[in-house]
Order: sequence, then structure tokens, then C-alpha cells
Amino acid sequence: MDVRELVGQARQGRPRAVARLISLVENAVENAANGSQSGVSAGGDRAATSALREAMAELATGGARPHPARVIGLTGSPGVGKSTSTGMLIRAFRRRGSTVGVLAVDPSSPFTGGALLGDRVRMQDHATDPGVFIRSMSSRGHLGGLAWATPQALRVLEAAGCDVILVETVGVGQAEVEIARLADTTVVILAPGMGDGVQAAKAGILEVADVLVVNKADRDGVQTTVRELRTMTALVEAPWRPPIVTTVASKAEGVDDLLAALDKHQAYLEESGEARRRRLARARDEIEAIALAQLRSRFAVLHGDSLDVLAERLLAAETDPYAAADDLIAALR
Amino acid sequence: MDVRELVGQARQGRPRAVARLISLVENAVENAANGSQSGVSAGGDRAATSALREAMAELATGGARPHPARVIGLTGSPGVGKSTSTGMLIRAFRRRGSTVGVLAVDPSSPFTGGALLGDRVRMQDHATDPGVFIRSMSSRGHLGGLAWATPQALRVLEAAGCDVILVETVGVGQAEVEIARLADTTVVILAPGMGDGVQAAKAGILEVADVLVVNKADRDGVQTTVRELRTMTALVEAPWRPPIVTTVASKAEGVDDLLAALDKHQAYLEESGEARRRRLARARDEIEAIALAQLRSRFAVLHGDSLDVLAERLLAAETDPYAAADDLIAALR
Repeated sequence: MDVRELVGQARQGRPRAVARLISLVENAVENAANGSQSGVSAGGDRAATSALREAMAELATGGARPHPARVIGLTGSPGVGKSTSTGMLIRAFRRRGSTVGVLAVDPSSPFTGGALLGDRVRMQDHATDPGVFIRSMSSRGHLGGLAWATPQALRVLEAAGCDVILVETVGVGQAEVEIARLADTTVVILAPGMGDGVQAAKAGILEVADVLVVNKADRDGVQTTVRELRTMTALVEAPWRPPIVTTVASKAEGVDDLLAALDKHQAYLEESGEARRRRLARARDEIEAIALAQLRSRFAVLHGDSLDVLAERLLAAETDPYAAADDLIAALR
Repeated sequence: MDVRELVGQARQGRPRAVARLISLVENAVENAANGSQSGVSAGGDRAATSALREAMAELATGGARPHPARVIGLTGSPGVGKSTSTGMLIRAFRRRGSTVGVLAVDPSSPFTGGALLGDRVRMQDHATDPGVFIRSMSSRGHLGGLAWATPQALRVLEAAGCDVILVETVGVGQAEVEIARLADTTVVILAPGMGDGVQAAKAGILEVADVLVVNKADRDGVQTTVRELRTMTALVEAPWRPPIVTTVASKAEGVDDLLAALDKHQAYLEESGEARRRRLARARDEIEAIALAQLRSRFAVLHGDSLDVLAERLLAAETDPYAAADDLIAALR
């Protein structure tokens, strides 16, 4: 299909066109990841890459743009109930009449691809609702691949007219934090006993939280977790101090408090000018990530095996890593 | 102090020199991280960077090199007992007469820097043992910063004569997995109930495991976790199928089984040629990461605010992300 036509259909909110465009993004990440191992890179599958370029150019500049989508990131340790919380928020925003996009950034494993689908099943409740778009993107790509792909997938969902986009990440590492950070509002979810305050702090996720949720609040230990979080957030000197909301997502308990906290943060973002700053940072990061991915693919493609040769020389103590990096950059010319 | 002299002292195993060299690496990551926000980058603090370059050149090429260190990565969800397991392995390798380096890759938070030290206290048992070097490195740097810094820190510990280097990562995200992958042998630690098999698979960490450890094996549910893992590893068709070891690290139970599994993997690595392949991949990744960091710093330093200008234009729908990336690369010339 013609890319321009595909973009046109996505703009009309046709789910199949939205899915195909996000697949273009995802395949480009996958190509980049394979490339990093095999020596062929993002530039490798040129047809797919050029379709993606054309689609992004069309989406970014062509035609009228809908109002910017409100992007909400959800992150937290495995098992705290992120998918259930996402489901709760989908229903809540739908009740308000908002169109909702969900981007689940989901590492998959060759061992267990099937086993992970269970979680997504809960979201199938929304499979027939034309106001909900759900897509997962694998994070098996090279480190940095998702930082590059996520803004592009957001652009597709925004063009499709999503009022709200929920970005759910699995894992509690640095990469996941950076993905969550692409959002306007980042929600960090914890559960009593599962990942208490210190554990969350260890994972470095508290500092990116705009809203803190203690889910599974019908379990023992919820007050301890809330108290620990309160002690930590009391130290925040930034103009926005993250509120702490307790929920039982499986029963939709606390959903109104969570919506209120999200709305309050949204209002803060707009009033303070922070909304624009975050969008600018997202644009900067996207451009930089694309440029670096292209330079990486040139290392591999244009100069054959020179990176392999340099690595051999480094192991043989014939060069040092900085001199080798200089050689690599010089070879770009 | 003169860099050459510092390297000489590190080679003699003087802890203070080792610590100072690893600080050089860590500061360079921190500079790069701050740079990504402020527009100054890795190249910003030129004196520190040039000292680091000189140190790495000296370490990589100058003088006699000791035998390569055996690098063992430990990863797993917060709370499974990684630090306790690391402590157990330090004692076990010391009993064998090996010199042990520990690199704890540890995200820290401005909220809770102090609170996290508790975990490290257990390792202070070894503070007076001249055969043990323990350093933690913050992962607050920009995504990819640690992929760049970790091989350099390993080089310092190897030069100091470490026979074994344990790399412990906090968090279960993609970045942490990539750090663990820098190791010769990657140990993935789980605990019953904390992070069962499916949760581990969700975090994408099973596929990098060379050895699987179910720690806290005196708790309920250990058999369930072992059974799940056995089902998953049964599907592995690679020549090495990760063995599953149960431990109670706090009581050193299972340490002999774990050592046996590690030794068996080490023998497999050497016999299959995989040891050399992994070292080559590590060298490739290190050179590439340094080259990309330098290109990133040029984006920021040489061309003033052009990335900001391009981001503004992208938000204003005057350009698209790929065209902006092309402009950025063109500005490098």
C-alpha cells in the first residue's frame, strides 16, 4: 500500500492502518537490533526504512494536526499490577469520552513468547471498542532502540486522534525509566511488600515519578509503603511534589483519586510551561536518537568489518579503546 | 597525580589507585549525563576526559597484561538477594585464593542516596581484605552511559590483578541486561514468590542467563519456581542449557553447587571458543559506545543549539524527525 494512503487512513482512525504504521516502527527497531549483531544495521532493510521515513515526514508535517495527545507513562516492578492499572485507566478515560491509545513496551523472550500473552488478554475487553487502540512493542532491540521508536509510535497514535496515550513499560531499569520519561506525566506503581520504597529507590524510578500509586492497597503493609514514600517525597524541593494515591486496580478502587491526581499534574504542566519543555525534550531526544542510529548503521555498512578489525586489535593490545573510536569516526568521512 | 604513575600503582593492586581510576570513568559518565541535559557533553570536562583517555591507553597497551579476568555478571529483580549472593561468592572465591573485584552498578536517587548504603554494608566485611576490590558505579548517566563505562572499569580491575570480577546490576530492565551481558558468565537470580518464572521472562532476563539461581530456597514455593524454570529452559536448543541452582545465600547454602555450575560454564566457554567471541563483542561494543558518545558530544558542543533549533522546528511541524536527523549529521562535517 501507498504510504501516503496508509497515513491518511490512520488519520481517520482506522485501526489496521495504525497497526501497520506501528509495525513499520517496530520492524525498524528489530532490524537495528539484528544489525548490531550481524553487521548490517537499520539501513539494512532499506525499503522498510524508507517507508518509515516517508510515513514520519507525512505525519510530522503534512495536513492538519489534531490537538496534542496527553501522554501518560506507567512504570513499576513486575507484578505490581501495571496491566490491570492500565485497564482501569482505559475504562476511566473512555467513560469521559476520550479516545485512548495504549503502547505496551514489552520485552519478549524466545523462551516464553506465548506465556506473556496472558497479561494482554485482560486488555482484550477493549478489542471491539473503536475508541481504543492497543499495541505492544518489543524492547528486544538494542539499547536505545526504544528511545528512538517510542516517539515515532506516539506520533502515529496521536495522528489517529488519541486524546490520551498510556505508555506501559515492563521492567524497572534505566531504559524503562527513560521510556516513561517520554511521557507528559509519569506514574510509578508500587505494591505493598512487592517493591517497597527502598527497592523502588534502588531501581531509580522514584525520581521520575509525577504521581505515585500504591496498588493492591487491600494487602497488608500498604500503610508502611505509603509512609515510606511520604518520607521520601517530603524531601522533594521541586515545584511539583508527587502525590501518593492508593488503588485496588482489579476492583477499580481509587480510580477517581488517580484521575484527579493526573488532572492536577496536567494543569500544573500547562500553567508552568513544563508541558512545552517536556515536548521539546522529547523532540530533541528523538532527533538525536535517529541521528545516532544512522551513524551506527554507517559504522557497520559503509566500512565493512572495520569495527571487527578494531576490536581484534584492542584485544591484541595493539590499540586502546579511545584511539580505536577515533579511527572509527575518521572512517565515516 | 601523574596518570602513568596512577596506572602503575593500580597494576600493583593499590586500592586507592584502583578507586581513583574507576572514579575517572564514573565522572566521565556523569559529565556525559549532565551534558545531555545542559548542552555540554562528555567532551565538556576536557581535563578529566583526557586523563581517562591517557589511563585507558596505558592500561590497554602499556606493559605486561595479567591473564584475563573471569567476569561474572549477577542480575535479577530488586529483593532477590543479589548483594547477599555477591557476598557469598566473594568468600567462596577468596577461599580458593582468587583475587576478587566487585563492580556494583547501582542506580542512585537524589531522594535516597543514603538509604541505599545499607545493602553495601554487608560487603564491608571485606573492607580490610587486600584481595578484594569493591566499587559501585552509579547508573544515573544517560542511557548507554554504562555500556560505555563498564568495560573501562573492568579493564582497571583486571589490570589490578583481579582473577574474578563480579558485576552486580540493580534493576531488571533492558539496560541492566546489556550490562550483565558484558560478562563471560551471566547469573540470573530469582526468589520464590518475589519474581517467579513468568515475571523473569517478562523482564527479558531469562534469555541472557548462563546460570539460573533460585535464592531464598528455604521459602515456600521454591519447587514451583524451579519447575517453571525447568519447563522454560527445556526449550533451549543452544549448545549450553542454563543449569538451575538453589541457594540460601544468607547461610551460604548451595555455594558449592553454584561454584560448580560457574566452573562448568567457564570450561564450556573456553572449549567452544565462545570465551573469545564474547570478549570480541565486548571490545566492539566498547569502541562503538565511545565513538557514539563522542559524536553526541559534537552535536552539542560544536554546533551550539542546533539540536534545540531542530526540536523547535519539529514541534512547529516545519520539519520531520528524519530530515532533522539528516541536518544534524550534515552539521558534523
